[in-house]
Amino acid sequence: MPDSTRIAILAHEKFPGRAKTAVGLLRYADHEVVAVLDREIAESDPDARVNDYVPDVQDAPIVGRAADAPEYDVLVVGIAPIGGGFDESWRPDVETAIESGADVWAGLHYFLAEDEGFADLAAEHGVDIWDVRRPPEDLTVAEGTAGDVDATVVLTVGSDCSTGKMTATMELVEAARDRGWDAGFVATGQTGAMIAGEGIVVDRVVSDFTAGATERMVLDAAEDDDYVFVEGQGSIVHPAYSAVTCGILHGAMPDALVLCHEAGREVVHGYESFSLPDPGSLVSLYEGLAAPVHEGSVVAGSLNTQGLDDAAAADAVAGYADAIGAPAVDPVRDGAGPLLDAIGEVEGE
Amino acid sequence: MPDSTRIAILAHEKFPGRAKTAVGLLRYADHEVVAVLDREIAESDPDARVNDYVPDVQDAPIVGRAADAPEYDVLVVGIAPIGGGFDESWRPDVETAIESGADVWAGLHYFLAEDEGFADLAAEHGVDIWDVRRPPEDLTVAEGTAGDVDATVVLTVGSDCSTGKMTATMELVEAARDRGWDAGFVATGQTGAMIAGEGIVVDRVVSDFTAGATERMVLDAAEDDDYVFVEGQGSIVHPAYSAVTCGILHGAMPDALVLCHEAGREVVHGYESFSLPDPGSLVSLYEGLAAPVHEGSVVAGSLNTQGLDDAAAADAVAGYADAIGAPAVDPVRDGAGPLLDAIGEVEGE
Repeated sequence: MPDSTRIAILAHEKFPGRAKTAVGLLRYADHEVVAVLDREIAESDPDARVNDYVPDVQDAPIVGRAADAPEYDVLVVGIAPIGGGFDESWRPDVETAIESGADVWAGLHYFLAEDEGFADLAAEHGVDIWDVRRPPEDLTVAEGTAGDVDATVVLTVGSDCSTGKMTATMELVEAARDRGWDAGFVATGQTGAMIAGEGIVVDRVVSDFTAGATERMVLDAAEDDDYVFVEGQGSIVHPAYSAVTCGILHGAMPDALVLCHEAGREVVHGYESFSLPDPGSLVSLYEGLAAPVHEGSVVAGSLNTQGLDDAAAADAVAGYADAIGAPAVDPVRDGAGPLLDAIGEVEGE
Repeated sequence: MPDSTRIAILAHEKFPGRAKTAVGLLRYADHEVVAVLDREIAESDPDARVNDYVPDVQDAPIVGRAADAPEYDVLVVGIAPIGGGFDESWRPDVETAIESGADVWAGLHYFLAEDEGFADLAAEHGVDIWDVRRPPEDLTVAEGTAGDVDATVVLTVGSDCSTGKMTATMELVEAARDRGWDAGFVATGQTGAMIAGEGIVVDRVVSDFTAGATERMVLDAAEDDDYVFVEGQGSIVHPAYSAVTCGILHGAMPDALVLCHEAGREVVHGYESFSLPDPGSLVSLYEGLAAPVHEGSVVAGSLNTQGLDDAAAADAVAGYADAIGAPAVDPVRDGAGPLLDAIGEVEGE
C-alpha cells in the first residue's frame, strides 16, 4: 500500500466519539485523509474540520456526502452499527465512490463484495472492494514456526478489551521507526488492518486457524523487519474473547509482551460480574501460558490514563510499573520511548 | 435423538485403525449399528464382523456397499481423508442411502448439503443431511453465564490432542448414568456430536464465538441434568489448537476438570520440537487460567495406558496420580468410578 493513498472516511453521525476506526486512521495511518463524511456535523457546520473535534491528528474537511469530498483513491467505511450490518442510507456514498473509480474498504460483518449491487458496479468500474473482516480462504492450522523467525517479536496483551493495545502497538511502531529500527506491524483487527493496508481480522477466522492466521502474518513481517509488533486482542481472562487472545499468543510466539491496562478498571468491560486479576497476577498468567510454547516475558506496561490529570496519571503509571515489575508509560501522553528501551534489551530468537 | 436409531457407518478401507469416528460410535453411541461399510475387508472376507477387528464394542456385519446393509435410518460417513474432502468413490453409497429414505451424517470439511447432487436427491426423498462440522448460523459471543447453571459442570482437558478426552468423557457419562445420576454430555467434536446426535464442532466456529458456542451447549444441557460432562479439545499448551481449548475452558466455566494424558508422551504430537510440561505444571496452568473467569480444580486424572501391560499401566497410573495430586485411572481399563467419586465431592455453582 503506497503511503500516498488518498482516503475518504465514512463516519455518518458517529464522528468522532463512536468512530474508532475513523479516528485510528486519522491518527496512525500514512494514508492522506482528504475528508471525513459525517452528514450530521456537515449539516450543522458546513465549514467543520476534523481538528475541531480531534485536535492532535491529521486535519481534513468534514463533508456530508461522498460527492462533496475532494478526489480520493479509497472510500473507507469507518464505522459499524451494532450487529455490523450495512446501513442502507450509506448506499449512495458507496455508489458515488465506486462510480468515481475509488476502491472501497469496509470492516462490517456484512460483506459489501457480496452485495450484488456493489459487486456489479465495482466490476463495471474496475475497482476493488476489500471487506477487511473476510478471512483469506487458504488459512490453515499453525505449524509452530513463529518462534524461529530472525526478528524480535513483540505482542501487546491486555487485562481486558479496549485497554489500548492497538494504540500502544502503533505508538511502538512509530517510535521504533523514529529510532531507525526496521519495524513491522502485524494487524489483527479491522482498524489496524486498514491502517496497515493489510492484515487478518483474527477474531473472524475459524477457531482452529486462530494461531495459524497470526503465525502467517508474523512470518511475513519478519522477512522484512528486525522488530515485529503484533497487535493483540482481548484478554486471556475474558469470559468471551480469551480464545482469540490465546491463539494470538501461541501463534505469534512473542519474545516480549507489553501489558496494556486502563487506569482504574477493575472489572471486565461489559461483563461487570467478572473481576480483573491484579496486574502482577496477569503478568504471571501471560508468561505462564506463553512459556510452554515459547518463552516470552512482560518487559513493559502501557497504561491508558485518559481522563486523569497529569499528577494522577503519573501516580497511576508509577503504581502500575510497580505492580507489573517493569517500566510503564501512557504512550499517548509520554511516548513509547521507555517501552522501546525495554524491548531493545530483548534477544529475538 | 431416539436410542433406537439404526445406523450404517461408511469406513471404506480405513476400518478400524483409521476410523476413529466409526469406532467411537460402535463403542459409545446408543444408536444400533446395523453395518460397517468397508469394501476392502468385505471383499477379502464376505463374512467379516466388527468384533473380528474390535472385540469390546457392539457387533455388526462388515459389508462392501450401502446396498448390502440391513435396513438403517442414517448413513454415517465415519472416516475423513486428509484434508476432509469427499471421496467420489463413496458417492454411490450416499446416493443409495438417500434413495432408501435414510438421513446422512458426515463430519467432513466438505459439506454434503452443499453438494448439488446430494441436496437435490435429499429434497426429493425428504431426508436430512447433517454436516456435523457446519456451525449453527446464529452463534454469538459468550455472555459469561455458564457459571450460573444449576448443575455441576465437568470438563475434560488434556496435555495434548488425542490423549483420551472424548473417551474419558464418554466413560464418565456412562458411569454416572449407571450410578443413577442425571448426566448430560456436551459434544464439542464431530465424533462426540454423532454419538450424542447433537453438538457443535467448536474448532470450526468463528474464533470470537468459541466460548459462546460452548456456553450455549452447557446452558442447554444444564436444563435437564445435574451433571454436565463437557468434551474438551486440544490443550492450552498446544502451538496450534490452544485457542479452541481456552475458549471451551472459559465458555464452559467448569466446576471440575479431569486432566487427560497419555502415558509416556513427552512432546506435542505432530509438533515434536515442543515439550509437554510435567503434569503437575499443567494442573497449575489450567487452574490458573480458569480461576479469573470461574474457579475450577483438577479433581481427577485420566491416563491412556494403551499398549502397556497391566503392571506397567498400574505403575504409570500411580505415578500420574502422584504428579497431579489427585485420583487417576485409565478409564478404559479400570472404569471411571474413582473419577466419579472425586467429582461427586464437587459443589456445582
